Amino acid sequence: MTRRTVFFVSDQTGVTAETLGHSLLTQFDSHHFDRVTLPFVDSIDKAHDVVARINATAAEQGAPPIVFSTLVQDEFREPFRQVSGLFLDFFATFLAPLERELQEESSHAVGRAHGMHDLGAYDQRIEATNFALNYDDGTRTRDYERADVILIGVSRSGKTPTCLYLALSYGIFAANYPLADDELDTGKLPDILAGCRDKLFGLTIAPARLRQIRKERRSVGRYASAQQVNFELRAAEGLYRRYQVPYIDTTQLSIEEIASTILDRTGIERRTRKL
Amino acid sequence: MTRRTVFFVSDQTGVTAETLGHSLLTQFDSHHFDRVTLPFVDSIDKAHDVVARINATAAEQGAPPIVFSTLVQDEFREPFRQVSGLFLDFFATFLAPLERELQEESSHAVGRAHGMHDLGAYDQRIEATNFALNYDDGTRTRDYERADVILIGVSRSGKTPTCLYLALSYGIFAANYPLADDELDTGKLPDILAGCRDKLFGLTIAPARLRQIRKERRSVGRYASAQQVNFELRAAEGLYRRYQVPYIDTTQLSIEEIASTILDRTGIERRTRKL
Repeated sequence: MTRRTVFFVSDQTGVTAETLGHSLLTQFDSHHFDRVTLPFVDSIDKAHDVVARINATAAEQGAPPIVFSTLVQDEFREPFRQVSGLFLDFFATFLAPLERELQEESSHAVGRAHGMHDLGAYDQRIEATNFALNYDDGTRTRDYERADVILIGVSRSGKTPTCLYLALSYGIFAANYPLADDELDTGKLPDILAGCRDKLFGLTIAPARLRQIRKERRSVGRYASAQQVNFELRAAEGLYRRYQVPYIDTTQLSIEEIASTILDRTGIERRTRKL
Repeated sequence: MTRRTVFFVSDQTGVTAETLGHSLLTQFDSHHFDRVTLPFVDSIDKAHDVVARINATAAEQGAPPIVFSTLVQDEFREPFRQVSGLFLDFFATFLAPLERELQEESSHAVGRAHGMHDLGAYDQRIEATNFALNYDDGTRTRDYERADVILIGVSRSGKTPTCLYLALSYGIFAANYPLADDELDTGKLPDILAGCRDKLFGLTIAPARLRQIRKERRSVGRYASAQQVNFELRAAEGLYRRYQVPYIDTTQLSIEEIASTILDRTGIERRTRKL
């Protein structure tokens, strides 16, 4: 494998540059990429320092680095004319066609994308995160009417990370409730859930993967046994079908994919888009 | 304000398209954007459906929509030649220069950026998220050696969302410990924290903003009073200085900015970059 150093340069957090670069680099299999994020490049001096650092890396390694930039201000981009490497300039590429289409000059303001530009949206994310924490694992069930969605599933099927991701990324109020012996033995949802069936979304997972995850948590006893895992998953899926709860198999899915699928299938609207 | 509909089109979750589009749109102040994410466009039929939907919106509104696309496969992009609107194609724009630079053809594979392509990185994020939950708010303090960073600060200074974000986005193990009466009255860190000073990072916040946040949670009593808030913040900052704990003021910062600043100042390496 050929190694290349990749720099994510931003006048702000670097989150957009990382996201763009990551998406593109996953398309190249035969390289190994060493990744360096250089955030808060918000002065000409810092821009010169960054260029010097990148050029030093180029000289050391004998291979030109790849630079993903989301620098907004023209004056901070200027020093990068001297950079040794492939400079991919996100804002310069896309702002011009947007300016023409919108017939508005962009503000070229630093640090808007992941900042506090919109305090309402920000507070929404924090409130949603607190909600996800308070309503995690069935610890609280009153006020379910505030929930946009209530994820149900057996232990370790992916409920908690998905709820937190929905909250932090989109300001969505997501609760979760674990299906345990009570529900699985009787095949009945508790009244509190049966009362808000339109908010329920089920998660399931392949038995082998669930055993692997549970073993890491508790390697002995019934919890990760084949018999127990098979029983729980069969019972949970039976319950979803009986109550017509939409559900997905999370085995092959990342948190982002689970979250996007849920939003796509329920039609719940994203309140914010900040990550 | 002029209204425009913006579509984020992706063969996968749409997270990259949303992030890139969001960054660009924050540069335009005099428009209101209605945002629609259309994920999992992974067949030619779906691509045609999406184009029809976008063109219907264009006809209805009399203003051409803006389309941010991260479609990877050429055949799914083909129907978009007929789209009414500004089509901004992230992959087509940047893949070609990357292919030339790396002298490798990109795989044009769908759905890599936020998928389970790298199971190790995925498990890392889940493990880090569980760690953040278990080590939230000082509930557990043994095994602090596993922590990459331990955030300290008074109640509601931003510790929990930052820890969760560091875990979900970067697979970083972040614990947090609330500074309460014990520490603030004595000006002393508990032994467990004093023993890992190199992992500590402090958060502070402006008194007025903290009072506002606390009032939403509990509007009566000492908790949100000016006197109490002023005392706590002065004591916390005194403690950071006494123990030489690096700290930041989170008043004007988003979660992303707090997280990026901490990583930038501590040099902690991102383990994954998935959001």
